[in-house]
Amino acid sequence: MMTAPALAETGSALPQDVSETAEALMDAAASDTVGLQFVEDLTTEIGPRLAGSPAEARARTWAVNELKQLGFQNVHVEDFSIPYWTRTHEIAEVVGPNAQPLVITALGGSKATPQGGLEAEIVRFESLSDLQAAPAGSLNGKIAYIDELMYKTQDGSGYGLAVRKRSGCAKAAAEKGAVACLIRSVGTQSHRIPHTGIMSRDGALGALPAAALSAPDADQLSRLLERGDVRVKLDIGVQSAEAAPSGNVIGEIEGTDLKDEIVLIGCHLDSWDLGTGAIDDGAGCGIVVGAAKLIDALPAKPRRTIRVVLYGSEEVGLFGGDAYARQHGDDLDKHVLAAESDFGAGRVWQFQTRFGEGAKPYGDAIKAMLTKVGVAEGNNEAGGGPDVGVLRRAGVPVVTPSQDGRDYFDYHHTPDDTFDKINPEEFRQNIAVYAAFSYIAAETGWDFRKAADAESTQGAD
Amino acid sequence: MMTAPALAETGSALPQDVSETAEALMDAAASDTVGLQFVEDLTTEIGPRLAGSPAEARARTWAVNELKQLGFQNVHVEDFSIPYWTRTHEIAEVVGPNAQPLVITALGGSKATPQGGLEAEIVRFESLSDLQAAPAGSLNGKIAYIDELMYKTQDGSGYGLAVRKRSGCAKAAAEKGAVACLIRSVGTQSHRIPHTGIMSRDGALGALPAAALSAPDADQLSRLLERGDVRVKLDIGVQSAEAAPSGNVIGEIEGTDLKDEIVLIGCHLDSWDLGTGAIDDGAGCGIVVGAAKLIDALPAKPRRTIRVVLYGSEEVGLFGGDAYARQHGDDLDKHVLAAESDFGAGRVWQFQTRFGEGAKPYGDAIKAMLTKVGVAEGNNEAGGGPDVGVLRRAGVPVVTPSQDGRDYFDYHHTPDDTFDKINPEEFRQNIAVYAAFSYIAAETGWDFRKAADAESTQGAD
Repeated sequence: MMTAPALAETGSALPQDVSETAEALMDAAASDTVGLQFVEDLTTEIGPRLAGSPAEARARTWAVNELKQLGFQNVHVEDFSIPYWTRTHEIAEVVGPNAQPLVITALGGSKATPQGGLEAEIVRFESLSDLQAAPAGSLNGKIAYIDELMYKTQDGSGYGLAVRKRSGCAKAAAEKGAVACLIRSVGTQSHRIPHTGIMSRDGALGALPAAALSAPDADQLSRLLERGDVRVKLDIGVQSAEAAPSGNVIGEIEGTDLKDEIVLIGCHLDSWDLGTGAIDDGAGCGIVVGAAKLIDALPAKPRRTIRVVLYGSEEVGLFGGDAYARQHGDDLDKHVLAAESDFGAGRVWQFQTRFGEGAKPYGDAIKAMLTKVGVAEGNNEAGGGPDVGVLRRAGVPVVTPSQDGRDYFDYHHTPDDTFDKINPEEFRQNIAVYAAFSYIAAETGWDFRKAADAESTQGAD
Repeated sequence: MMTAPALAETGSALPQDVSETAEALMDAAASDTVGLQFVEDLTTEIGPRLAGSPAEARARTWAVNELKQLGFQNVHVEDFSIPYWTRTHEIAEVVGPNAQPLVITALGGSKATPQGGLEAEIVRFESLSDLQAAPAGSLNGKIAYIDELMYKTQDGSGYGLAVRKRSGCAKAAAEKGAVACLIRSVGTQSHRIPHTGIMSRDGALGALPAAALSAPDADQLSRLLERGDVRVKLDIGVQSAEAAPSGNVIGEIEGTDLKDEIVLIGCHLDSWDLGTGAIDDGAGCGIVVGAAKLIDALPAKPRRTIRVVLYGSEEVGLFGGDAYARQHGDDLDKHVLAAESDFGAGRVWQFQTRFGEGAKPYGDAIKAMLTKVGVAEGNNEAGGGPDVGVLRRAGVPVVTPSQDGRDYFDYHHTPDDTFDKINPEEFRQNIAVYAAFSYIAAETGWDFRKAADAESTQGAD
């Protein structure tokens, strides 16, 4: 169904003009101002953009205007609706002889505490599994506390493990009779800055009031527990609604003879409410907008269309990605490639693909090009990013420019996710990568779905 | 008035047994547990200890028990009264099209805003001087904002400059007609963690509601101002009282034949309310308690008394230091040496004295000893520390073990001043220094006030 030139014509090596243009794009990215300005403006003029909130709606209006001013085509919003949750207040304090405040933040989907708060004894668990193994009824009237550390990794793999306690605490604690759940913040820093995040991706309220302690507060609570029983007062207020407006903002650099074929590069426009969503995910939006704009500035447009998608409501359950797949279900086969930048602004250190086996030579050609900006060649098991996962599962080829994520969880989902945390030089290297692979995918017309084909694969080797 | 042995007897070099004991104390400090446990217990069991608050009172009771249990003698509290101020709430938000919250903390002594808060336009100044130079009436109904950076220095010298905007903002802003004052947080980090501190050392309420923005929030406000007018809603609640109880906690390692002569080593027991006062100044208390306790554990007590003073209410105006000087005014001549540890727990990198000119050889002998724990020889212009400044001005010889303060203002006066910020190894090196100089001062009987004396100075050279 793809109109890819036969390998016999162009080979799996890049045509020289495509190669030269890709290199020029990467050079231009090094002094890009559009992408960084996009992040600065979004995080400054809108600030926090909680999914379903008036601020997210303002961000959509802002982004539509911005993309139009930048010269994107077919700029529009694709609306959808999400279940809404927001915090109104969150207070915790140790009561009794060691009375002192604790810094917490409610987890997304937390229930409210009863009016005036609740007060209960803390029971500490080293892990979610330990809590799950506690006898039924053993936490009657108590607060479960999971004190589990997360470690720094370049690829962010510590996050998946750490998030289990966030997803599982309230449910497991409720089963044991607890009245609330506390966890040590997911994350890798040790400031009085707690880390929020959704408990459940279906948008349902959690089973209990649930909150994360900042790392120093988790340390403090654990030290107090070493000294004896600890009672904590917890007062969490929330508002929720079954439906609130959200949407995906879309703009395009229209292609030429293959303009119906889509190279989709995305990010998410919503953010958690605590910070201004600079690394998560203003940076991703600046990267894809900056990359597309560099391609737009070329003397000749590439053959396929570059579609930039600023997804809505990613943080609370990948609602934007699902809505996109639903709304474009009839033409997913026109999506030749997809990627989402949603892991901050750290330097891209490897480039992964998920292509058909016959398209391996195309992947190799792109990877070879990207070594010029310091990117190692990755495997063919790319995830593509959270909101394009649904496209990947529907067979759309995806790539993942893997960013250095060692510092990402120092800021992610915390008040500290602010514009100053972005390193402009590393950010621009990301633009270089996105501009290069997007341009190559759009201009070559290659079919990244291509199934194994002994003859041509052999030829490419 | 001092009963110092003649130089002819002991010389200005350390007697060998004193030297050996000082070295043994420094060795023992490297594995000290008493000092660090003291800080851990204080910051965990009491937590924040705002001057004049019930928590500071609990800290005094706690410290008395602790010092008694550790075997200190003559443990008691010397009460005094201070003017009291505390925050009850502090909220700021940009209003209008860029509506978003701002992270602030009220400055010590801030007035409350009117019930329900106030809303006004922001006028930015690069420095306090710029604000002071604004025409009278030019800020009528507006909020003055001083956006001045502080830089990292090893000796903390950036702080004195940075604090000027904290002390001066409300007064200068009020003179120009402003309704409130905001400053970029004093400090050297860039987290969503604001920095508090007293506006005026006399305990009086400031002229206006006044607060500090965290560094990222200051960046944000300045970026918004580049884009146009900005209105901010400010809602600050405070409680104050003319008199609240405070006190100094004192314990001693009693000397022998010169037990009326005092080597005073101090710290302050109070802290700001935002953190748990670990580096400011739980660490200082752990250092002096740990050092004194090492000396107490020697087979023989030194000749003079080691007096540990845990001052109260330092943060809000050096009230503890003043009270001590007032309450001990009649026997200040018995104070042969004084020092306060109040600059965190960073490694001591130089040792300053302020001795009489004739006592230079004694200083040299102590400094030579301290080179064994990596301490450079400093000048003879020591300040001694905030609460002992009043003693220094009254003629008491002081020393300053200068700590590496490069990271100090990353945590100082913020919620982030917590126990995990203390490096145990560097903390113990401080104990080594305090134990060594305190022991030498107590055991040699040297007169650090000694005036220039051509003959003996020559002899010492």
